[in-house]
Amino acid sequence: MNYKIAVIPGDGIGPEIVGASTKVLDKIGEKFNHSFDYTKVLAGGVAIDTCDTPLPQETIDICKASDAVLLGALGGPKWDNLPGDKRPEAGLLGIRKALGLYANLRPAILYEELKASCPLKPEIVGDELDLMVVRELTGGIYFGEKGQDGDNAAWDVMKYTRPEVLRIARKAFEIAMKRNKKVTNVDKANVLGVSRFWRSIVLEVAKDFPKVELNHLYVDNAAMQLVINPKQFDVIVTSNLFGDILSDEASMITGSIGMLPSASLSDGKFGMYEPIHGSAPDIAGQDIANPIATIISVAMMLRFSLDLTEEADLIEAAVKKTLSQGYRTADIYSEGMKKVGTVEMGQRIIENL
Amino acid sequence: MNYKIAVIPGDGIGPEIVGASTKVLDKIGEKFNHSFDYTKVLAGGVAIDTCDTPLPQETIDICKASDAVLLGALGGPKWDNLPGDKRPEAGLLGIRKALGLYANLRPAILYEELKASCPLKPEIVGDELDLMVVRELTGGIYFGEKGQDGDNAAWDVMKYTRPEVLRIARKAFEIAMKRNKKVTNVDKANVLGVSRFWRSIVLEVAKDFPKVELNHLYVDNAAMQLVINPKQFDVIVTSNLFGDILSDEASMITGSIGMLPSASLSDGKFGMYEPIHGSAPDIAGQDIANPIATIISVAMMLRFSLDLTEEADLIEAAVKKTLSQGYRTADIYSEGMKKVGTVEMGQRIIENL
Ligand SMILES: CC(C)[C@H](C(=O)O)[C@@H](O)C(=O)O
Ligand SMILES: CC(C)[C@H](C(=O)O)[C@@H](O)C(=O)O
Repeated sequence: MNYKIAVIPGDGIGPEIVGASTKVLDKIGEKFNHSFDYTKVLAGGVAIDTCDTPLPQETIDICKASDAVLLGALGGPKWDNLPGDKRPEAGLLGIRKALGLYANLRPAILYEELKASCPLKPEIVGDELDLMVVRELTGGIYFGEKGQDGDNAAWDVMKYTRPEVLRIARKAFEIAMKRNKKVTNVDKANVLGVSRFWRSIVLEVAKDFPKVELNHLYVDNAAMQLVINPKQFDVIVTSNLFGDILSDEASMITGSIGMLPSASLSDGKFGMYEPIHGSAPDIAGQDIANPIATIISVAMMLRFSLDLTEEADLIEAAVKKTLSQGYRTADIYSEGMKKVGTVEMGQRIIENL
Repeated sequence: MNYKIAVIPGDGIGPEIVGASTKVLDKIGEKFNHSFDYTKVLAGGVAIDTCDTPLPQETIDICKASDAVLLGALGGPKWDNLPGDKRPEAGLLGIRKALGLYANLRPAILYEELKASCPLKPEIVGDELDLMVVRELTGGIYFGEKGQDGDNAAWDVMKYTRPEVLRIARKAFEIAMKRNKKVTNVDKANVLGVSRFWRSIVLEVAKDFPKVELNHLYVDNAAMQLVINPKQFDVIVTSNLFGDILSDEASMITGSIGMLPSASLSDGKFGMYEPIHGSAPDIAGQDIANPIATIISVAMMLRFSLDLTEEADLIEAAVKKTLSQGYRTADIYSEGMKKVGTVEMGQRIIENL
């Protein structure tokens, strides 16, 4: 089969980690007789520098004409002082909205081999940690009306509509059905009207999934529970802003942030895949960034958008094997291991495919 | 001197922990020749049950006529299904607003004696942890307009005005001047207009405090940094919603949530003092709740509202001594320690005054 992949290398370490990842994908293509056609497109800082906009229309068009999108990372201090709508972040938000990527899936997994870098005590983490944050990605305060009254005041509106909540809730329950059948809804229903509305719709959707256990946590409590009892979670479903905060916290408690992928899905099979870490401009161009999060994002792409399950499994197994052989990039290095750079890590994984 | 203290025992374990705390205060009065006049008032669930409102006007009036307010805890599942404006939380929000308590100070301290219950690894926490979250408490999305369009949509507005940001920023810098002279501003300025507005005012206020080092973190990053590198923080200043989430996370990483007090201050000396933990209805009435957070809240009250520094120091020293003698309530109990109930913990602390 022939698959069209739009590739957005982006800023900072983006091009390096994406480069390592498409090489892995090429090897998969060779082994399984698929061809992956990459079209490189611009977004974020590099697009600002060359096209004066963080999200050229051409990028949107090419992404829409593809089977899936692979993204490195966007942004950096260079563009931090531009006005809001000219920043790299505006490109990221714009692409999510333009492609209808309403469901952001962020698995937080503790890798056995990296237990040593988990910040939590072993008695809290136990043998494994495997939860999934399902974050709403195209609504809420990220896309609500904003306003400013001169120097006097400024505001943003956190709004959700019924269809927006219905589809993300449904997605979370569907995912839970394939996992441990538990959904934790996180909101702030004791204070926010929009959260009470959100919760009522989650309760409604829950009726269609009688096998899934549902509970509710306020966002402040969820932030605590992630630290003291993360093993209680299977799937967390939450709004855009709360998901931003909690998914980052969840990834950090695994101590494996350089390892964690994400998928942003629309209806149907289309999706965008990217590591959850940032563009790390301070280490860009030095061949030291960890490509694993992006390589596992490619595995997620194979699984969710291209239905190539066996291929996805193979990549994940190769990553595990490479870790068990002791290869580590600098961010996950510990004594006694073999330190490798971005390119070599990619090659080792390819050898293990 | 004679001090007027409004006391809101509240719900769940509230009456027990407040009872233990006013006994400590009485002993302070005896030793230092102060008299503390308590006026008990209703708020939260118990006010709903008896007066059909979570915040009777009389409560506001008596609090306003007092030198300070001591609060136990409000709320519980019994009242969770009432409409938003009839819930115990509405009483809490109402009292904050009515009394102008715009600055919520939440110290997160790791007690040497309780290191064992810290969820983070010792190499992350080191010898001590002592940070202060300064949370804006009477603005932001908690008090913004709300709206609902039938079953179709609902929204809340996150708004800040210039005077609101000015005063909380100023408070944070003032507090930092008495601590380690470092302020971390937390916002989401890469996405929210209200955050960019907030940040610009923080930068303005910073000019008046050239000795204080200022940095900025996005809220998602702050949630991560608290887990992997909490020692970087001295004072965190942030908005109402972000402060709700981050202060709870910060308290949890200390592992000492039963020990942590809070102060909610208005302009001038007036303030309300309460433990940061909740009303814990499941253990109410059993004489097992930990009164220490409330007792240390009393110490904060002496320090901030009544200018009784020596008395405050004495209470804090007595708490430390009691811990070092091995007395523990159930929530902080570990093997080899002496388990005591609410009342006995209070008495042991009084003996150590
Ligand atoms: C860069 C920023 C706009 C973005 C977000 O807040 O969504 C990022 O934090 C993320 O989570 O992907
Ligand atoms: C009970 C709730 C309304 C309250 C808040 O969100 O402010 C609580 O979580 C707190 O932090 O004091």
